[in-house]
Amino acid sequence: MKDCNCIFCKLANGDIPTNAIYEDEDFKVIMDADPATKGHALILPKEHYADIYEIDATVLGKAAQLAQKVIRHVSPILKCDGYNLLQNNGTVAGQTVFHFHLHLIPRYEAADNTNVLVTNHVELSGEEMKALTEAMKL
Amino acid sequence: MKDCNCIFCKLANGDIPTNAIYEDEDFKVIMDADPATKGHALILPKEHYADIYEIDATVLGKAAQLAQKVIRHVSPILKCDGYNLLQNNGTVAGQTVFHFHLHLIPRYEAADNTNVLVTNHVELSGEEMKALTEAMKL
Repeated sequence: MKDCNCIFCKLANGDIPTNAIYEDEDFKVIMDADPATKGHALILPKEHYADIYEIDATVLGKAAQLAQKVIRHVSPILKCDGYNLLQNNGTVAGQTVFHFHLHLIPRYEAADNTNVLVTNHVELSGEEMKALTEAMKL
Repeated sequence: MKDCNCIFCKLANGDIPTNAIYEDEDFKVIMDADPATKGHALILPKEHYADIYEIDATVLGKAAQLAQKVIRHVSPILKCDGYNLLQNNGTVAGQTVFHFHLHLIPRYEAADNTNVLVTNHVELSGEEMKALTEAMKL
């Protein structure tokens, strides 16, 4: 939605450059700028929907199927041991950008990540982030 | 899948009674027996798939659309202020039953639930759980 002023609209539609690992007519998959773990990515619909209450049902179904496609593809690349799929609605639920998005969070046995969904953050340099983006591209 | 021995197969297919708020040809939606918050529910496909790696893509798309349907329906009933949709894959990611399921976790501003996804649990009596189940039925 080109006339929307939200940051995820701009990222999803290419108005702001970002580390993306996938794009099609409906979605862009980008790396989370503040990752909970190495490889933490976000599925963004190009259309603006605030949350799961608003999103078109067909787009939602496609987003879930895209999550599967991404997770299947990147798991052997990341050599992760598990995956969380997380979608937050409302400030109290941890939503900070009010444009629907799915968090894809790889998990690693080697990491101390008990509370990874809430508190953990991994530090990656710009170069590490770019290399990871390339490695994860579908 | 009637010949499967997993607990969620038995709950989804009625071989073990449970607090359910929705059922159709493909899914049963049940109350989590160890809820993170009041109203925490699970979407279970009736077919057995271990996780997001295994699940049929069509069933996955329908599960996401059902999550939206449930969340839209129960939010005004629960008077919650937000919602987390969570799907765990692998022990390291918090998966404890290896039958694909979606967690639907309502969030409340009044509650101290900073780490709700990881550590919080609400205590409900059997009666409270039954009443809540009835109230949330679609």
